[in-house]
Order: sequence, then C-alpha cells, then structure tokens
Amino acid sequence: MRTYFDCIPCFVRQSLDAVRLITSDESIHEHVVRNILRLAADLDMSQSPPVMGQKIHRLIRELVGMEDPYHKIKKQFNNLALTLYPELRKLIISSEDPLETAIRLAIAGNIIDFGVNSKLQESELEKTISECLAAEFSGMQLKPFQQAVNEAEEILYIADNAGEIIFDRLLIEQLPIEKVTVVVKGRPVINDATMEDAELAGLTRIVEVIDNGSDAPGTILESCSRYFRDRFARADLVIAKGQGNYETLNEVNKNIFFILKAKCPVIARDLECEVGEMILRKSKAFEQEKIYAGI
Amino acid sequence: MRTYFDCIPCFVRQSLDAVRLITSDESIHEHVVRNILRLAADLDMSQSPPVMGQKIHRLIRELVGMEDPYHKIKKQFNNLALTLYPELRKLIISSEDPLETAIRLAIAGNIIDFGVNSKLQESELEKTISECLAAEFSGMQLKPFQQAVNEAEEILYIADNAGEIIFDRLLIEQLPIEKVTVVVKGRPVINDATMEDAELAGLTRIVEVIDNGSDAPGTILESCSRYFRDRFARADLVIAKGQGNYETLNEVNKNIFFILKAKCPVIARDLECEVGEMILRKSKAFEQEKIYAGI
Repeated sequence: MRTYFDCIPCFVRQSLDAVRLITSDESIHEHVVRNILRLAADLDMSQSPPVMGQKIHRLIRELVGMEDPYHKIKKQFNNLALTLYPELRKLIISSEDPLETAIRLAIAGNIIDFGVNSKLQESELEKTISECLAAEFSGMQLKPFQQAVNEAEEILYIADNAGEIIFDRLLIEQLPIEKVTVVVKGRPVINDATMEDAELAGLTRIVEVIDNGSDAPGTILESCSRYFRDRFARADLVIAKGQGNYETLNEVNKNIFFILKAKCPVIARDLECEVGEMILRKSKAFEQEKIYAGI
Repeated sequence: MRTYFDCIPCFVRQSLDAVRLITSDESIHEHVVRNILRLAADLDMSQSPPVMGQKIHRLIRELVGMEDPYHKIKKQFNNLALTLYPELRKLIISSEDPLETAIRLAIAGNIIDFGVNSKLQESELEKTISECLAAEFSGMQLKPFQQAVNEAEEILYIADNAGEIIFDRLLIEQLPIEKVTVVVKGRPVINDATMEDAELAGLTRIVEVIDNGSDAPGTILESCSRYFRDRFARADLVIAKGQGNYETLNEVNKNIFFILKAKCPVIARDLECEVGEMILRKSKAFEQEKIYAGI
C-alpha cells in the first residue's frame, strides 16, 4: 500500500507520541519532530507507510541512545497477555468453533500496537477482547482460510507485536503446528515482537521461529534478510498479522491471509471497511493473479 | 500563546483539509503538504499558531490562484446565520438575562471555524446552539464583563469568522453600541470575516466597523495596519472573539475579554478547561499587570 497524504500528519503525531513515551527531554522531542518533518517533505509517497516508520524509529533510537526503548512496555504487555492466556485457551477449546474464536482473539490482541496508540492502557485490552468475541464479523473468510491451511505444506505466520504474540499463539495452536513457522522482527522497532517475545510466549517450544532480519514495522521484503526472503518464497501460505504487514504485503503476489483490526481511516478505506473492523481476508493481489492465469 | 509540538501535526492536517476543500487537484495537495512540512521544520515555536496559519493560507491562495477560496462557504454560513437571526434575537430579548444568552449564542457561533473543522455541516451549528444555551457555564465571568463594558469608553470588538459575525451582532446589540467598534480582517484568510461579511451582517449600519489590515487568522499586532494598532492602543476594552484572537492576544498587556469555544486540546490546556468548553474570560496578562501595579 502506498503512503497517502493523510498518513503524513499521523507520522508527525506518532513520532511525537513515541519520543514522549521514551524521554521527557524536550530538546529531543524538538529534534525528532523537525527531522521527521524534513524527511516527510521529501518522502516518496509510492512507498508503504512502514518505510517511513522504519526511518522515524531509527532516528528516535539513535537520538535517545537506546537499542530497544519499548522493552519495558513489551514486557508489560507480554506479562498481561500471559496471565490471560490460560483462560482464553479454555474459552477457545470449549467454544463451538475453536478456530473462529482463536481468530477473533488474535485480532483482539492486535490492539496492542504502540505505533498507532502510544497511550494504550491494560483495561483497553480486556475491553477489546470482549468486543472482538461478540462483534459481528460478516466479512470473515473462515472457510477459505481453513481450506488454505489444510492445503498448505509450509505456512509462514508473520507476527506483529509483543503481547499480541501470545494471542497469536492461541491461534497457532489451532493450526497444524508441524507446518507452521513463526516470523518475528530481526531487531527492535516500536513494540514489534522479536525473538525474545516469541520465547516468552512459549512459541519457540512448539513451532519453528525465525526472524526477518529487519527493523521495519512491517515486512518490507527488500529490507529483510536473504534467508527470510527465501523462506517467504518457499512458503505456500502466509498469514500476515497486523496493519504494518498489510501495508507492506498487500500488493505482493503471494497466497496471503491478512488478520488485523483496521485501526486507522487510511487502512479502513483501503480495505473498504469501517475503522475498528475485524479483518480476516485473502490477498486480492494473489486472487487477481489466479483469475488472470485462468483466462 | 506559543506554538506547541502538538500544533504541528494539526497544521499539516489543516493544510490538507483546506487545500482539499478548495481544489481536487492532487498535485496542488502534494505541493502544499510538502511546502508546509518544510516551513514547519524550521518554525519558530515561540510564535503563536496563527503566524503559521497565515503562511499556510497565503501559500494555498497563491497555489490555487484564488484571492478568497472560502468566499462561497462564508456566504453559505452568513445566509444560514441570517435566517436564524430573528428567532435568536427574540430568544435573547425574552430571556431572563439577555446579556448572558447573547454571550452563549456568540460562543455557539464560534463553531463556524473552517480552520479547525473544514467539514462543518449546517446541522452542527443548530446542535451547537442548543448545547451552548443549555450547558453549564460555571467559569463565565459575566459580572466583571458587564462592569468592564459599563466602565469602558471605547470598546473594540474583534470579530472572528463569517457567519459567526451574525452571532456577534446579537451580542453587540446587548452592549452600549455607541461605544463599540467592530474589527474584521483586512484581507481574506480561511473563513475569517472581512468588511463584506460585516456589511452582510448589518453591522455597518449600527456600529463603526474597521479592518485590521492583516490576513492572519488572528490578531498579530505587528502584521496589522498602523491605524488598527492606534485604535487598539486607544481602546480601554477589547472583546476578542475565537481561538485565533486568543492565541495571538492572550499575552498582550491589555484589558481584554476573550469569548470562545475551546476547540482543540492545546487551547484547552492553556485555558485549563475541557475541549468544547465555553469561555468568557478576562485576560490574565492584564490582571497580573494590575496586581504588580498595586504592590
């Protein structure tokens, strides 16, 4: 997905939110904001929003001199999600359609996104869980998803954020785990999950986990390691979680299912849905290719 | 009031809203956004937000090649307010405290601000009128205002926007009109009222109306004509309407009463009030000076 003009004020606001969360030093706030404005002024709008996100958070980390400024927040939400995990697992197992319930919960976990909302409170997570379990989900492509999972031989599950990754575990446990490889970021960016979070979530004990070699808040293939790109090419099904992965992969010709909560108006417009809506949707870029191939 | 970091994403969003309202030419949208980002990157934050507002709207007018791109919108809201005028005037006259009712209505009219909300619908104005008539208004400095009006010999009423100026007329009619001079902008900027709007509102028939010689969306004294500055210096009471006038005059040592609806979080924080609150408040900058003089 390209960057829209509406993303630009949002980049500036997100940069300010992020740097305020990390340091109270106003001279750093000012330096970040002025630099982001300069970067944005010359931005290539054909690139996806996470390209700018990567630049913003590299700059912030450099200026505050911290390798992983969100480390404490990631730990906090991992711990919160871990305390919820046993109860949510029971809920899935005892539900009428465990896969559907697990998808709803995985989407609920997508609220833990400090790129979009740097002021997220723990109470909001519990509220979102209730809402996602109860909400209308008319566009859910459950059957095609189930079929794709059954047919696939190698599934890449591209995780999104820390904390959220424990909700991903709930869903992964409902998949044929022998086929699944989970992907985390190569280096810290915002609260995106890294190998440390996958270990904390217990995922490394049940599936293969690899990292993508990148510090972009999404999956910018050219920013990822050669190893990850090979694995991506080899996989016959990709499950891409969250906005950043949608923004970077929605035009890639690949059998991808996107799972996310549409949290901003630009994404919602692109997905032709309402802000806040739950999404489980097969990539249109891949569908089109199949249609053309059939002609 | 200085510019805060939070104003910057808002400047970018406002620029985008403004240019979209005026033209559907995306190349102009892009040109405006990139230029505003460059201006914002080097912004002097000690200046008030309308300094940037003036630059933004000069740039937009220049790029779209229109002297008064909001002319149609100003006319629309003038006409709407004129149709409401007779009924609102009756309401004031028959109310228990006509001055208070007129102040509430003048504040309701302040919702007609295309700098803050470029998507304002006519229905929102009628809703705001009802709300402003009914709402709690605990901080209203009605008695000090009434006393200041009685004591003053020369009152400058600095108007804000077109449409809104008809609501100002309702309040001005409750003041000793022989003492009142109304001030409008010297040239068009956003939907700020100019002489044409004062004439349409019928104000030129009942009071003296002058313009300030400026195209800033507020009262930046150094940007105003010498004649206006002299009149400002001579007046012993200033009534300053709206956010832009608050932002540019709140630190001026002058006997000013500010009348506005606090429509953004930065203003609300500065005023120590909630977003959406009604304000009738004497300038603190002037109060302080009197206290010091009394020591």
